[in-house]
Amino acid sequence: MTTIKDSVHDYIELEPTAEALLDTEPMQRLRYVRQLSTVQFVYPSANHTRFEHSLGVYHLASEAVDRLSIDDDLAHRLRAAALVHDVGHGPFGHQTEAAIERHLGRHHDEIGWLLEETELGDVLEEYGLDPDAVAATVDGRGPLGELVAGTLDVDRMDYLVRDAHHTGVPYGTIDHARLLYALEIVDGELALADGNVATAESALIARTLMNATVYRHHVSRIAGSMLDRASERLLSDGVVDPERFARLTDSELLATLEEYEPTAGFADRIRNRDLYKRAVWARREEVPEECRGLEYDRTRNLEREIAEIADVDSEHVVLDSPGEPSSPESRARIVVDGEPRRLEDRSSLVSGLDACAREIWRLGVYAPEDALEPVREAAATVLEIED
Amino acid sequence: MTTIKDSVHDYIELEPTAEALLDTEPMQRLRYVRQLSTVQFVYPSANHTRFEHSLGVYHLASEAVDRLSIDDDLAHRLRAAALVHDVGHGPFGHQTEAAIERHLGRHHDEIGWLLEETELGDVLEEYGLDPDAVAATVDGRGPLGELVAGTLDVDRMDYLVRDAHHTGVPYGTIDHARLLYALEIVDGELALADGNVATAESALIARTLMNATVYRHHVSRIAGSMLDRASERLLSDGVVDPERFARLTDSELLATLEEYEPTAGFADRIRNRDLYKRAVWARREEVPEECRGLEYDRTRNLEREIAEIADVDSEHVVLDSPGEPSSPESRARIVVDGEPRRLEDRSSLVSGLDACAREIWRLGVYAPEDALEPVREAAATVLEIED
Amino acid sequence: MTTIKDSVHDYIELEPTAEALLDTEPMQRLRYVRQLSTVQFVYPSANHTRFEHSLGVYHLASEAVDRLSIDDDLAHRLRAAALVHDVGHGPFGHQTEAAIERHLGRHHDEIGWLLEETELGDVLEEYGLDPDAVAATVDGRGPLGELVAGTLDVDRMDYLVRDAHHTGVPYGTIDHARLLYALEIVDGELALADGNVATAESALIARTLMNATVYRHHVSRIAGSMLDRASERLLSDGVVDPERFARLTDSELLATLEEYEPTAGFADRIRNRDLYKRAVWARREEVPEECRGLEYDRTRNLEREIAEIADVDSEHVVLDSPGEPSSPESRARIVVDGEPRRLEDRSSLVSGLDACAREIWRLGVYAPEDALEPVREAAATVLEIED
Amino acid sequence: MTTIKDSVHDYIELEPTAEALLDTEPMQRLRYVRQLSTVQFVYPSANHTRFEHSLGVYHLASEAVDRLSIDDDLAHRLRAAALVHDVGHGPFGHQTEAAIERHLGRHHDEIGWLLEETELGDVLEEYGLDPDAVAATVDGRGPLGELVAGTLDVDRMDYLVRDAHHTGVPYGTIDHARLLYALEIVDGELALADGNVATAESALIARTLMNATVYRHHVSRIAGSMLDRASERLLSDGVVDPERFARLTDSELLATLEEYEPTAGFADRIRNRDLYKRAVWARREEVPEECRGLEYDRTRNLEREIAEIADVDSEHVVLDSPGEPSSPESRARIVVDGEPRRLEDRSSLVSGLDACAREIWRLGVYAPEDALEPVREAAATVLEIED
Repeated sequence: MTTIKDSVHDYIELEPTAEALLDTEPMQRLRYVRQLSTVQFVYPSANHTRFEHSLGVYHLASEAVDRLSIDDDLAHRLRAAALVHDVGHGPFGHQTEAAIERHLGRHHDEIGWLLEETELGDVLEEYGLDPDAVAATVDGRGPLGELVAGTLDVDRMDYLVRDAHHTGVPYGTIDHARLLYALEIVDGELALADGNVATAESALIARTLMNATVYRHHVSRIAGSMLDRASERLLSDGVVDPERFARLTDSELLATLEEYEPTAGFADRIRNRDLYKRAVWARREEVPEECRGLEYDRTRNLEREIAEIADVDSEHVVLDSPGEPSSPESRARIVVDGEPRRLEDRSSLVSGLDACAREIWRLGVYAPEDALEPVREAAATVLEIED
Repeated sequence: MTTIKDSVHDYIELEPTAEALLDTEPMQRLRYVRQLSTVQFVYPSANHTRFEHSLGVYHLASEAVDRLSIDDDLAHRLRAAALVHDVGHGPFGHQTEAAIERHLGRHHDEIGWLLEETELGDVLEEYGLDPDAVAATVDGRGPLGELVAGTLDVDRMDYLVRDAHHTGVPYGTIDHARLLYALEIVDGELALADGNVATAESALIARTLMNATVYRHHVSRIAGSMLDRASERLLSDGVVDPERFARLTDSELLATLEEYEPTAGFADRIRNRDLYKRAVWARREEVPEECRGLEYDRTRNLEREIAEIADVDSEHVVLDSPGEPSSPESRARIVVDGEPRRLEDRSSLVSGLDACAREIWRLGVYAPEDALEPVREAAATVLEIED
Repeated sequence: MTTIKDSVHDYIELEPTAEALLDTEPMQRLRYVRQLSTVQFVYPSANHTRFEHSLGVYHLASEAVDRLSIDDDLAHRLRAAALVHDVGHGPFGHQTEAAIERHLGRHHDEIGWLLEETELGDVLEEYGLDPDAVAATVDGRGPLGELVAGTLDVDRMDYLVRDAHHTGVPYGTIDHARLLYALEIVDGELALADGNVATAESALIARTLMNATVYRHHVSRIAGSMLDRASERLLSDGVVDPERFARLTDSELLATLEEYEPTAGFADRIRNRDLYKRAVWARREEVPEECRGLEYDRTRNLEREIAEIADVDSEHVVLDSPGEPSSPESRARIVVDGEPRRLEDRSSLVSGLDACAREIWRLGVYAPEDALEPVREAAATVLEIED
Repeated sequence: MTTIKDSVHDYIELEPTAEALLDTEPMQRLRYVRQLSTVQFVYPSANHTRFEHSLGVYHLASEAVDRLSIDDDLAHRLRAAALVHDVGHGPFGHQTEAAIERHLGRHHDEIGWLLEETELGDVLEEYGLDPDAVAATVDGRGPLGELVAGTLDVDRMDYLVRDAHHTGVPYGTIDHARLLYALEIVDGELALADGNVATAESALIARTLMNATVYRHHVSRIAGSMLDRASERLLSDGVVDPERFARLTDSELLATLEEYEPTAGFADRIRNRDLYKRAVWARREEVPEECRGLEYDRTRNLEREIAEIADVDSEHVVLDSPGEPSSPESRARIVVDGEPRRLEDRSSLVSGLDACAREIWRLGVYAPEDALEPVREAAATVLEIED
């Protein structure tokens, strides 16, 4: 077995399949995609990549299948799926996800096409794995697919701890070893063993606090919204083919944006952290329900409307209205008195955490510093934001 | 300045007053009182002492007074109070607290008598400090006494992080530096600066999760209840004077219990972790309201009644019914839109965490392994525990 | 499998034999023997015990035997030996080792008598282990006994990392996982695989730096020398039987010293860290060869001679002249170009580290603060110390 | 004061000058230059950047000037120099250093031109600092310039600890706080206070061990040598202007190499970690003296000669012969008995560590996997390498 040293899990042992998968271009590309995309503009040490995260998820999957005594073939598939689970991510990960979905109609968890079009599929077959089954697992489907993408998946166990290590924000430091120890298979599905309500809650809490301080930090959101705006332009104008877009690295996207005049300004501002500022930053209760989680076309129309009223260039208004928060972890199964239950049915914390998530929700309207005042006023009018 | 190396805060700088205080017997005694008393029977690496914790609290108090630009005299007093804040703890800290209160009528935060009777008071005076003012501060009274004992005190900031470091349970690892940075004085009282609801919640969450996994672990509670029972006997029988009792170290208490025949068995069982087991471990809703948070006399009577029905020695029944959980942190002040508010009024999490605390509440009845069955039945009858 | 949470290795899995061994009195006693005895007087957070260290050594032994694919029976024995390897330590570990050897003629690694006289031997037999074979393994003899006590043993791998974690001094933080990965059996003996000279050196470096900053710190040595002096008196005067002495806990020894008038002063000074100071602290080259590593009787005679000349009580002079430093790690076997070699034959660092060890060697003469001057002068004369 | 959270030093406080400097393009560019360039191909979590490292160095400089009570003006300059000390680094830092020096005649520590040509100089002046004085400080010249670039500089204190944190290799974890505490100014120059020989040695040891396991790892060296080769071609062929080259980011260099046909192959191999392998990896004593630390022209000639004999494309031979190792830390000043001395004159370890450095020295000849055998043979002949 080859071993790789990781700053989070120390030594990670790689089976031959894993080594071969790592040597493919789609996996190597993940060295150039930051795990937390624009969060580095807030937490400058958050430069870890989806490559090292993938190794971590592989490691936890290996530990899990050993503990759960899963049969060799399924274990082999689960480990491989864990390793490649992020190859579908575009540049800057979640920050270009929406643009890619609009133009490709594909979520990053749907990686069947990548397995087909790249050497990844060949390598899987060479090592006796069915690419379709692996792709299904990455998408959370098929036997124990939930171990890779589900309410108790090893993806989350790795990223919380890794993001904490690299941002320096301790809230993500969950007891991932305990989560692994507590995993059981009940009626063919994953569940946490009896006595682990607090264990399950801790993961949900960790994500809630990391959302509040890291993942949803306004600086990261502003940079992300600017990226989305610029990416959309690139794709709509046909400058880059969507499939190629989806396989760019972070830097390649920035370079591509810089080379196209209509998006060069955004790219330059993002690269140099010369970001738009918040003209509006409104709480959930201040925003009319129809303005929460806006469709893209509607967003663009509103931006134009605001720009017109404010009398600024329409590129100078970026509207960012996220959907309602969700917490898949609250549906995690947990054994209580011998019966598997949903966490949300057994924990008094879940509703509090849901409320928390709603509390940190914000609608943002971003603009260059010198346009803040008119944009603020126009946006308040257009979006009917209450004071 | 002298510096001391600490495993949690790295180097701690000591002013001359602190050095002189550390050289007194009451402070040196804290080297022999474990911070987490009986928790080491569950988490074997939890052997840190109230001595190192006191240094940590002193360190955080020093940082806080610097940041808050508190005037020299008050800062001097606050630092001294932080350093000596735990001298009033008896052997095994909280586990003998109730027994000491019953016999001395004094809580561990009331240290006036100690300052008077030991060299501590003299040292304080020698360095220009008023022992009464220091004692008041330790008790949370007087100007900014809440920094040492209050809803945002440095005591909690240290112990959560330190207990996490030594148990290996990560939940206590709060961002204490951020709490310190966020401290402000508003209308003469401490508050967290605007934008810190999540910071405040994180401390409350940390304690809730540490309660569930560490502080209220049943093995620690059983050992603690056995200690309380044996200590009471020692004091009631007049074997040790209460004032002397309160100043024993952990080991001295065990030795004293071992030398007195009626308590020797308890001591031996505790020392060798040959503890009673749980005959009853009932949730809040299974226990009649009048059986929650029982007075000591009532507890003893119920124990005797249970023993009689179960036909076992009355020493073989230990009833442990804690009071209702409380969360002082939920009353922490936090600035929101320029106004200081109570955390509980601004956070949707507080009620969830309160519910959590109620959920992990348990009434325990403990007995030797061979008496579990009869004690369980008798206790169910006597305490009217529902199934 | 039962698991225990450890602050250094996270979860440790215990086989039934280990659980049964832990439940014995000799193992539970280790909860009350600090791993670093008097080091806590310098590094106040160094309160970890030989109990948690024993769990750590058991854990590393388990990992090692798995990796080395050692057969079940031998693996079982090695794990058990790793767990009990420290039961032979007296109170304050190494600090009373010399006194115990003088009076019992036994080193702490010889635990045959303990296995015979306590329940430990019975438990071993009950689980199919031969106590004599286990005792031999603890002493580094028999098949792979060197894994428990040798130049590449798991004892050292645990204590360096654990002592670093608890003192806060980072030098001990070796890459113990790499050491484990590199272990091989060559001709029936342990060796590090090819390419691991730096790995082996790092362990030697770590111990050298920990010696300089932690293990040989003068404050710890003074407390230790005072303990040795007092312990000798206790044993010579027949106050405690040597076998009982060897099984006291740290606190029990202090209490015993306090109860015997001739040693009460020492005990009180140690407990309250009111230690003697250095009247002499001489480098190796300043000390005549015959004064290095003195026999006990000779030490006592010199102390009396110094006291007489200085005109102070002979209890007020403590002479501490350690033997020549040794570094077993330098004889560790390491594969180079396919052949096992001694580290010292392959590493240019070993001689430098040996020189380092000689450089930090010191002869100390300790005395109460008010007797320092006369003792210094008298000692210089008696010991012929050069300036 | 603004604060930034760092994964190594926790909160870092920024004065206004620092904030303004951070907002310049040359500083923001460091977000896109990995601190350990090609080491990520060995340690996949080593993705930290020169941006976060610069913040760390600024932080340590701030602490140092506070402790040393340096006057405000000089302190201001030292902090600014610490922050910008790495702006002169080209893409992939040290890996393109030689190519840049060949074409620009400038070392990365010479940043005067950058201060002049970019907004950095203006910002310095705006905040009352003399750009020339700052540039001199970055180069280790002028009053206390050695704090930024010298034998006891804060650059090294940060990078050792940071590289350890991100690679997971513990050897770099020095006690940087102790180094800071020990700093003194003696006769206008930095020195470590009395009693710190081990402190000084520990930093030297840390770098030696990090060299062996991290910085000089062969995989990183191969990638670096390939980069140097390709960069030279780019510059020699005039594809990129040297000044522009020196200011590319890592990704921009890769992209530029990919776009130029003669270097595209190298770029592709580097990006996808499809690196050349070692045809030769010779120890110091196997290599004739004249082949150690070769000039560039000589290197190129030898490569061509080897390629010709081996009958392979000359692009398929990369020769990598580093110069003799040096250890500036060994000349660090340290106070011994009141007198400042050089560490190398007081430490028995220094010569051992120098020997270590010579032992890990290797000459490498790298080639594609299918050309290894002929290249090995040809290189052995041409370079007269002994077996």
